[in-house]
Amino acid sequence: MYDPLLLPELREMLLENDARAMREFCEVFHAGVIAETLDALSNEEVWRVLSQSPLQRQVEIFEYFNLARQVELVTCLDKPHLSALLEVMAPDDRVDLIKNMDQAQVELLMPLIAQAERSDIRKLLSYPEHSAGSIMTTEYASLREDMTVLDALGQLRSQAPNRETIYYLYVLDDARHLHGFVSLRKLILARPETLVTEMMDRDVISVRVDEDQEVVAKKMARYDFIAMPVVDDQGRLVGIITHDDVLDVLQQEATEDVHRMGGVEPLQDAYLSTPFVTLAWKRGIWLVLLLVAGLGTAELLERFDETTKRFAWLVRFLPLVLASGGNAGSQSATLVIRALALGDMGRHVQYRILRREVATGMALGAVMASLAFCFALIDIPMLNASILAGAVALVVMLGTVNGTLLPMALRSLGMDPAIMSNPLIASLSDMLGVMIYYNLALFAVGNTL
Amino acid sequence: MYDPLLLPELREMLLENDARAMREFCEVFHAGVIAETLDALSNEEVWRVLSQSPLQRQVEIFEYFNLARQVELVTCLDKPHLSALLEVMAPDDRVDLIKNMDQAQVELLMPLIAQAERSDIRKLLSYPEHSAGSIMTTEYASLREDMTVLDALGQLRSQAPNRETIYYLYVLDDARHLHGFVSLRKLILARPETLVTEMMDRDVISVRVDEDQEVVAKKMARYDFIAMPVVDDQGRLVGIITHDDVLDVLQQEATEDVHRMGGVEPLQDAYLSTPFVTLAWKRGIWLVLLLVAGLGTAELLERFDETTKRFAWLVRFLPLVLASGGNAGSQSATLVIRALALGDMGRHVQYRILRREVATGMALGAVMASLAFCFALIDIPMLNASILAGAVALVVMLGTVNGTLLPMALRSLGMDPAIMSNPLIASLSDMLGVMIYYNLALFAVGNTL
Repeated sequence: MYDPLLLPELREMLLENDARAMREFCEVFHAGVIAETLDALSNEEVWRVLSQSPLQRQVEIFEYFNLARQVELVTCLDKPHLSALLEVMAPDDRVDLIKNMDQAQVELLMPLIAQAERSDIRKLLSYPEHSAGSIMTTEYASLREDMTVLDALGQLRSQAPNRETIYYLYVLDDARHLHGFVSLRKLILARPETLVTEMMDRDVISVRVDEDQEVVAKKMARYDFIAMPVVDDQGRLVGIITHDDVLDVLQQEATEDVHRMGGVEPLQDAYLSTPFVTLAWKRGIWLVLLLVAGLGTAELLERFDETTKRFAWLVRFLPLVLASGGNAGSQSATLVIRALALGDMGRHVQYRILRREVATGMALGAVMASLAFCFALIDIPMLNASILAGAVALVVMLGTVNGTLLPMALRSLGMDPAIMSNPLIASLSDMLGVMIYYNLALFAVGNTL
Repeated sequence: MYDPLLLPELREMLLENDARAMREFCEVFHAGVIAETLDALSNEEVWRVLSQSPLQRQVEIFEYFNLARQVELVTCLDKPHLSALLEVMAPDDRVDLIKNMDQAQVELLMPLIAQAERSDIRKLLSYPEHSAGSIMTTEYASLREDMTVLDALGQLRSQAPNRETIYYLYVLDDARHLHGFVSLRKLILARPETLVTEMMDRDVISVRVDEDQEVVAKKMARYDFIAMPVVDDQGRLVGIITHDDVLDVLQQEATEDVHRMGGVEPLQDAYLSTPFVTLAWKRGIWLVLLLVAGLGTAELLERFDETTKRFAWLVRFLPLVLASGGNAGSQSATLVIRALALGDMGRHVQYRILRREVATGMALGAVMASLAFCFALIDIPMLNASILAGAVALVVMLGTVNGTLLPMALRSLGMDPAIMSNPLIASLSDMLGVMIYYNLALFAVGNTL
């Protein structure tokens, strides 16, 4: 397990240039632990340590660095070493790295890579971002229907060393059409003379290569798969997606939703890896949009200048009224957006959600209005406190309804409901709040301008 | 794969009471697909179909129903059938179900369950909510060090049928101390006469039974494990956590964060499974807290009543100024909270984040102020527009700093940074905004009250 004492030891090995100790270090620990420890060293130091171990092991450890560090690390490798490294890497990790490398450098490297690996790279690069094809690996284990269990185990032994997972074996014909699968567990348990065709599962759950990665990840999560086969439009197996990729996709999608809900265009990379200008831009476009909404609210308030002058107490509670609507709306939007993200919700379910939200909005509106009324009575007369309470009740109710309906509407238009961010809901609520609050006040004092 | 035509077929089988067809249906499809299709039927109908297949298969399918439906389904089973079902279920799924069942019913059932399973249930029930112990299963495959590969495969064949995963084999001594592990892949590839002790990995990454499930899930995600061993405080293996549980935990933790950020106390269950009163309460406590903050803002504004009356134009842009600060702050809080949730961030990294946020805040403040100035000039004189622009610049900058520092501060106090919800950041920003805006106005017109 990760041990904070490893790093000082490692530094000493480097200082003493102790090749044997470094080789041993790369052998005994888990590749992930080694990468974590090495992460604190400079690029050159990392390679001085890694170079002591065989290429296969170097790759295992290298794949545990995060992508940004991988990109940095490859810049200080010579071309023969780098191309050898790329040849051995898992196809999906390799393509991720290549996508993020300097493209001029990649073009220089490609001729050094073996033909088969090169065409694999070109193929995987051709799949669009966020598709199943873009996250799959081409290293799967396969069988033929007419094999016996004994043959199958023999073939598996020859395939296993360079297959990402061997826990599902896919049954293919000569044209690579996917006919079924056998789990390794089942294979181990079967009698040696059994034919694959007798024991394979024929109801294979697979995904199309052009399907969205989020759909794929949800499917895998639902069926608890370790690997999911990916087929082309003719039902031929082209790759598999493994359980660790699903985790990454689900994390990535959750991050996107969270960012959208906070009023930030989703970042492609980790926060600290995103360039400053990109970060400012992804926030700025939303802030400007929200500023325009704020100008709309100003426009509305201008019509009430006279009212403001006559009833200055109204202004005191203006932020409270607007915030109450915004907060209740943000809550509803948050609940609805997350519920939509986690489950497949038909019309019927959406209707149930709306009914609940209306009821919740009414209950919360009543409670908030009563509290606001009691507190306000300390400062302002009964009539004014009643106006305030009425406004709070209405904005909380309407905020709740908006926070529920707007994400649902976006979704039924085929857009991401998370675009209805908390700040956007709050802005819309501001306009509505001003209208309700001032008109209620004018109505209550029997006056219209 | 899921087929919408399955349901009508199934209904016909039920109508014709076609036992053979129902048994076949339960055999040929993936258990997950069968559960999805059955989910549309009544409890009685589900059991009429499932009863046609052997108990083992019934359980496989049953485990794919969501927990709420499982609880409903067991209410209409007789005691012998239900206790048999529980005996066969995977230990972790079984305990989840039992926790959610009517406790009086559980007490009546327990005597019917075999002694070994019963003590397993009591044991798993004893681990606290959200601990590694509460999500682990006790069905793992194990080996002894002095076995040969051939012995190991033999033992595996006898253990496999009732082990949740056999893809990692844990090497234990007689007291169940965990000494190492062997992956099934390695075992398959090894020569039959090799001793387990020669080939096992000794650097086992494991978790303690009382560790938090979120920590466990993150560790498994980082090392791409299919299963993670769980040990007690004496290093004895007590269970394993499998990859599918990690997905559930990470989804659950992401949902909690999202809810907090939207100003809702995290729900324990899915939105529609949460009782109305609970839902209202989990929102209400935050709304009331935010209402109190709003009263604070009102208190501040009261001191500026005179200013409000003299400069009614100030009120027009008040929501805009307050919203700008709140929005910029929400963005920062969102980015920081998510970054903290995804990575382990030391002091050094937090300092880098803060520096970036200050720079971003200044850039965004300048842009927003310029835009607000230009737009406002249409309506109000140059001096007033300058006051507005100055206030916008300051609230955006301070909002950004607050949105960054407050989550970090909570974290360093050992609390969940996500408590700094968007609405809360906006409320704090409101108070600050009022102070800045009004004081700036008073200062600019050379007046103090």
